[in-house]
Amino acid sequence: MTLRIRWIRAVGNDTYNARFAQEFAEVKNPGTEVEVVSLRNASVQHHVEYQSYEGLLSGDIVRAVRDTAQQGFDAVVVGCFYDPALVEAREISGRTVVVAPCQASFEVAANLAQKVSVIVGRRKWVPRIESRVREYGHAHLIASFRALELGVEDFQRDRDETVRRMIAQGRHAIDEDGAEALILGCTLEFGFYRQLQDTLGVPVIDSALAAFKRAEALADMKQRFGWTPSRVGSGEPPPEDKELRAWNVFDPADVPVVSPVHA
Amino acid sequence: MTLRIRWIRAVGNDTYNARFAQEFAEVKNPGTEVEVVSLRNASVQHHVEYQSYEGLLSGDIVRAVRDTAQQGFDAVVVGCFYDPALVEAREISGRTVVVAPCQASFEVAANLAQKVSVIVGRRKWVPRIESRVREYGHAHLIASFRALELGVEDFQRDRDETVRRMIAQGRHAIDEDGAEALILGCTLEFGFYRQLQDTLGVPVIDSALAAFKRAEALADMKQRFGWTPSRVGSGEPPPEDKELRAWNVFDPADVPVVSPVHA
Amino acid sequence: MTLRIRWIRAVGNDTYNARFAQEFAEVKNPGTEVEVVSLRNASVQHHVEYQSYEGLLSGDIVRAVRDTAQQGFDAVVVGCFYDPALVEAREISGRTVVVAPCQASFEVAANLAQKVSVIVGRRKWVPRIESRVREYGHAHLIASFRALELGVEDFQRDRDETVRRMIAQGRHAIDEDGAEALILGCTLEFGFYRQLQDTLGVPVIDSALAAFKRAEALADMKQRFGWTPSRVGSGEPPPEDKELRAWNVFDPADVPVVSPVHA
Amino acid sequence: MTLRIRWIRAVGNDTYNARFAQEFAEVKNPGTEVEVVSLRNASVQHHVEYQSYEGLLSGDIVRAVRDTAQQGFDAVVVGCFYDPALVEAREISGRTVVVAPCQASFEVAANLAQKVSVIVGRRKWVPRIESRVREYGHAHLIASFRALELGVEDFQRDRDETVRRMIAQGRHAIDEDGAEALILGCTLEFGFYRQLQDTLGVPVIDSALAAFKRAEALADMKQRFGWTPSRVGSGEPPPEDKELRAWNVFDPADVPVVSPVHA
Amino acid sequence: MTLRIRWIRAVGNDTYNARFAQEFAEVKNPGTEVEVVSLRNASVQHHVEYQSYEGLLSGDIVRAVRDTAQQGFDAVVVGCFYDPALVEAREISGRTVVVAPCQASFEVAANLAQKVSVIVGRRKWVPRIESRVREYGHAHLIASFRALELGVEDFQRDRDETVRRMIAQGRHAIDEDGAEALILGCTLEFGFYRQLQDTLGVPVIDSALAAFKRAEALADMKQRFGWTPSRVGSGEPPPEDKELRAWNVFDPADVPVVSPVHA
Amino acid sequence: MTLRIRWIRAVGNDTYNARFAQEFAEVKNPGTEVEVVSLRNASVQHHVEYQSYEGLLSGDIVRAVRDTAQQGFDAVVVGCFYDPALVEAREISGRTVVVAPCQASFEVAANLAQKVSVIVGRRKWVPRIESRVREYGHAHLIASFRALELGVEDFQRDRDETVRRMIAQGRHAIDEDGAEALILGCTLEFGFYRQLQDTLGVPVIDSALAAFKRAEALADMKQRFGWTPSRVGSGEPPPEDKELRAWNVFDPADVPVVSPVHA
Repeated sequence: MTLRIRWIRAVGNDTYNARFAQEFAEVKNPGTEVEVVSLRNASVQHHVEYQSYEGLLSGDIVRAVRDTAQQGFDAVVVGCFYDPALVEAREISGRTVVVAPCQASFEVAANLAQKVSVIVGRRKWVPRIESRVREYGHAHLIASFRALELGVEDFQRDRDETVRRMIAQGRHAIDEDGAEALILGCTLEFGFYRQLQDTLGVPVIDSALAAFKRAEALADMKQRFGWTPSRVGSGEPPPEDKELRAWNVFDPADVPVVSPVHA
Repeated sequence: MTLRIRWIRAVGNDTYNARFAQEFAEVKNPGTEVEVVSLRNASVQHHVEYQSYEGLLSGDIVRAVRDTAQQGFDAVVVGCFYDPALVEAREISGRTVVVAPCQASFEVAANLAQKVSVIVGRRKWVPRIESRVREYGHAHLIASFRALELGVEDFQRDRDETVRRMIAQGRHAIDEDGAEALILGCTLEFGFYRQLQDTLGVPVIDSALAAFKRAEALADMKQRFGWTPSRVGSGEPPPEDKELRAWNVFDPADVPVVSPVHA
Repeated sequence: MTLRIRWIRAVGNDTYNARFAQEFAEVKNPGTEVEVVSLRNASVQHHVEYQSYEGLLSGDIVRAVRDTAQQGFDAVVVGCFYDPALVEAREISGRTVVVAPCQASFEVAANLAQKVSVIVGRRKWVPRIESRVREYGHAHLIASFRALELGVEDFQRDRDETVRRMIAQGRHAIDEDGAEALILGCTLEFGFYRQLQDTLGVPVIDSALAAFKRAEALADMKQRFGWTPSRVGSGEPPPEDKELRAWNVFDPADVPVVSPVHA
Repeated sequence: MTLRIRWIRAVGNDTYNARFAQEFAEVKNPGTEVEVVSLRNASVQHHVEYQSYEGLLSGDIVRAVRDTAQQGFDAVVVGCFYDPALVEAREISGRTVVVAPCQASFEVAANLAQKVSVIVGRRKWVPRIESRVREYGHAHLIASFRALELGVEDFQRDRDETVRRMIAQGRHAIDEDGAEALILGCTLEFGFYRQLQDTLGVPVIDSALAAFKRAEALADMKQRFGWTPSRVGSGEPPPEDKELRAWNVFDPADVPVVSPVHA
Repeated sequence: MTLRIRWIRAVGNDTYNARFAQEFAEVKNPGTEVEVVSLRNASVQHHVEYQSYEGLLSGDIVRAVRDTAQQGFDAVVVGCFYDPALVEAREISGRTVVVAPCQASFEVAANLAQKVSVIVGRRKWVPRIESRVREYGHAHLIASFRALELGVEDFQRDRDETVRRMIAQGRHAIDEDGAEALILGCTLEFGFYRQLQDTLGVPVIDSALAAFKRAEALADMKQRFGWTPSRVGSGEPPPEDKELRAWNVFDPADVPVVSPVHA
Repeated sequence: MTLRIRWIRAVGNDTYNARFAQEFAEVKNPGTEVEVVSLRNASVQHHVEYQSYEGLLSGDIVRAVRDTAQQGFDAVVVGCFYDPALVEAREISGRTVVVAPCQASFEVAANLAQKVSVIVGRRKWVPRIESRVREYGHAHLIASFRALELGVEDFQRDRDETVRRMIAQGRHAIDEDGAEALILGCTLEFGFYRQLQDTLGVPVIDSALAAFKRAEALADMKQRFGWTPSRVGSGEPPPEDKELRAWNVFDPADVPVVSPVHA
């Protein structure tokens, strides 16, 4: 059985595409094929740290997910911890399952711990993430948010400093806030979970890995059981002929993703 | 005191711009200036009935709100009952207050009744709106959703039929569900509230009027008290020079709105 | 269009009536007429700092609101941040809209910020206000309560000291609790919001001004749209003849308000 | 051990005082002394079916509870299912425990069933009661509200008809709404629970009996364990000398209760 | 009237049975008969500090409650603050009311205060108790959890040290967390509440006493009013003949309780 | 990579062990090894339809999970939709991940739909399941519960009748309650999802398959990322030497599972 998964980096740059592909290559199941892409002509090139950027990128993400569905992927990840445009894109994803890191991480954590802290880059992000978690129904799991006071682009710059801060904040979360597990609240906080986990002695959820494996599992269930996004009620998509084609909502000539790296 | 308010229709067409402008002209305060615009090069021309359309239009709305802020408007309404991109646009709105119909309507209703039903076009819309209302904290106010089984573009086609269905569903809501007030859950359900109200004997909130007057009131408070969107925490906007200009996030040559009608 | 608004100070003394009238005169719209009154023969003369006082004053407030309705005012404010007797008075307010400061302040704040702290006089007040906010559905907006450890009557005594404490607690709220806006949780915390706002750099909601302008806006909507309190379901008032008159519930000779100051 | 309990009928009339006293006499423990009183000079004589009446009576209730405390009662019941002025009166009740029927009934029901329906007189009452139950945290227990369409004063008029309606609505609640127990949502629905219980086969909570026995139990714990209402935080009462006496908040000459019947 | 109450210590040892019996003897009503028992052949002998122990003991508790019902007791307490197997045992308790300390303590506290802190032995216990309180709907009452860092078996070892820690944590809870009352969150924290209460000046709920008196009160209501656990819906028990006897679910030869001490 | 998963049927009989093993064999990944076992000397042989049975079986489940951990399985499923003893067993599961059908099914559904109905056997089950779902935070996803009025042991008896009822209730759920997906709320409702799904046109989640694949996915993450149940806070297990061995909590000679079938 071959599962085809696309990871959409929710930005225009491809700085980390190869790196993500490599990460996923190392952890995927044998039959899984992965493609990491960026958004072509993305409204924002660099990061989704701001909610306005999230808004700007929503359309790009919807287009990329539509394309992903048409390419026949089994599952797709919207690769940003804000879970941008998740519900919006899921409506247009056809038979492709749509997954996002925040929801996926909390779903893992709910199986491992009763209280979880989220290690975010900046306090700025907290209300947005808190709102998402409340929407998903997982607010009772939150022990605290702890901020590193690093921006999205800082995590990988001075990795030793990042680790130092993560360990300090993680320890505060465990000792003072009652956290039993940690979630790294940005997909670019990659490459740290193992060291943190060994040092702190609690599960540390890398949200990119959690989302990727969630996509793989749901893709597997899709193929085996036919469990695809519901197309009734709120899942009803726009009519193909009467609206999407008639109004040219999606330009057939448009290729909304770019810089694919395969794994 | 002059208050400048822009109403952004969350679509590309301008079919109803003049009509909305006229509605607002009739109900605005003397010093209020209104501009109704559509989205230029909108990703979707016709309506926002689908969540995917909402996602596609989010960027257009953020751009339009950014432009609105730069044009120095006091308040802006994102004119769709899904309240699309509300939080996302508010971050980039500078000193302009951002308002949306669903939130505004529930805020009015909370002052007039303890149980409210929402008259929507199609059942399809319900989970999306319910999710928004839950996000705002007003879920306990909901008596029920009642659907007309009419699409966004149908409301104004056969107005007699629309009224008939509205009265029937409104009566069900009052008699069976315990509704004490009704909210018309789409900005294109305009022109009906008065007749419904007279017939049914409960307040019937026209969401477009509720949002427009909410914008006017908040614009007034902005001018008098300096109450503008918070710019700390989640309200912190992207840095102008270091990101917005350096990355050309917003094209200065771009005019994101079109078909202005003034009132 | 003339809007007639009455502000009912929820106590018997008239110490601040002129001051409130002056505040409102400065911020009202041209056609708005304001009357600030105190409760005649009020059960408590001085303040509503205690819940028992709130209970004692409830009947006085209901009577005053009934009188307000009969005088044909468009809207009335119950002028205390505990929002005393709000639901109770609304039932008997006829076509007059009833507003209160806590609800009005949170409704403004919800349009400007995602996390809000309330600056109260004393910790004693917190559970009462928290209960109200929970009732309204706005609990998720609360970042924290911060207490000045000043009683209601202390705020205006040594204003410099009050400001010093407000700034200190406001800063704690912003820096430590994640507040993005502040609400001054007592109508007698007037005259401070501007200085605080300028110093702290976040919106600071004066609850008296928020409530007054909310009343004005709802009065405006009442006149224009006929949006008055629902009179079905929980809004159904007692029968005029069969109960109110037959039982002499409201003494027609009684004038429940006193010390009117107009603006 | 002698426990002294006062039942305050939340109205002015004494029609049912003897009847209530008799009911309590039959079910009290040997050492319990009961006094049933009405409100003297009550703002409303007949019933509390309207929220405005509840507001009018709040002060009378606070005064009656204050008097009860000064008379040294161990516990007091505010005898109306709206639980009027419960929190307000508790603040001024000194060492006297304050209980009310809605809260007491749900506390019993929570020990006997997982889903409960409330049999109310009229649909009009539902939002008020629902709001109270939500405030107490018991909303998840509610299976439904079922209305008899009888007013407070109708229950005892044609008792056969009342029983007929109660059985019909109770059966609907059990068969259609999943109720596992019923609460009679008005203290004047007395004298019916046993017949209903025998007929319907589920526990039927008479709210007056539930509240009376709750008061007796809490009075017992008060005497044995010293568990009295907290007097810190929100429980801090107004200062006796500096405010209550200085301002003459409670007229010492006033006797706020009337028509005592002892059991 | 004779009320028969059994207190089931949720462990196998009988170290404190006589002590509990003595405590209850001192506080029971004249007609109440108490039996304190331990679990015979208990899966865990010593304490229920771990959730796995709770799971192991659940069957023993169900058996003991079944036996209690068959012995005709009016009420039974599952004597552990985790309220282990409460819902499970209630289904099989026939006409015997089943009570547990956590639920009973919060029900008392809800009548005395608006914010409560729980003094637990170890932080380890907090998520379990928090989950229970959330299940009951009382989460809004929680001011904080404060841990003594003492195990279940430590409370009575060095009682002076225990008191010292309780006073210290209680004071933190009151001064910093806004607690208005305290609950001692383990039945083995007995013998301390009075001293704490006198020292700290707030009600201190001994959970064993609260549960015992709750059982006594509900037993009284059971006898007088016939209020027994519902046997419809989720309260429907397994069929006696077709399952319980046919499958020998409960061994008739088994005596599931041991070491009875009477009071 | 070899993943070892054990499915614990939460009863004593082995009627369906081979059938479950076969089901899992058909859907597992290549490297996955499955063992389906029943409880040895189970307190209940046949089903867990009653909450008292759940309580009786809790200890058996804890013992089986402890054994599973000692046998070095990567993940274990407690195979009953009540998710019995889930939190209790997880504490003692060492490095083995513990999964259960209700939680797993809702986690799948949350990725595919916004409103879900649960098809249960009997209405009797609803409050228990509703309580679990509320505990997990997924209550907002529930459109309705629909009962087949079939017991656990009936589902597979007359499969045609079962299908007929499932389709009827599923259609009600979709058409009347707004369900966008269905969950089959009992692990013994196996073998039906595909036909239902094809007939009704919405995803139909077989809870056994959902739980099995969730276990497989979490086992995979455990091996790859070291994500095992947290062992701090509420996850801290009892001390091995000082308690488990010293008290002989788990009899080393005991083999708590029986009738293994491998796949």
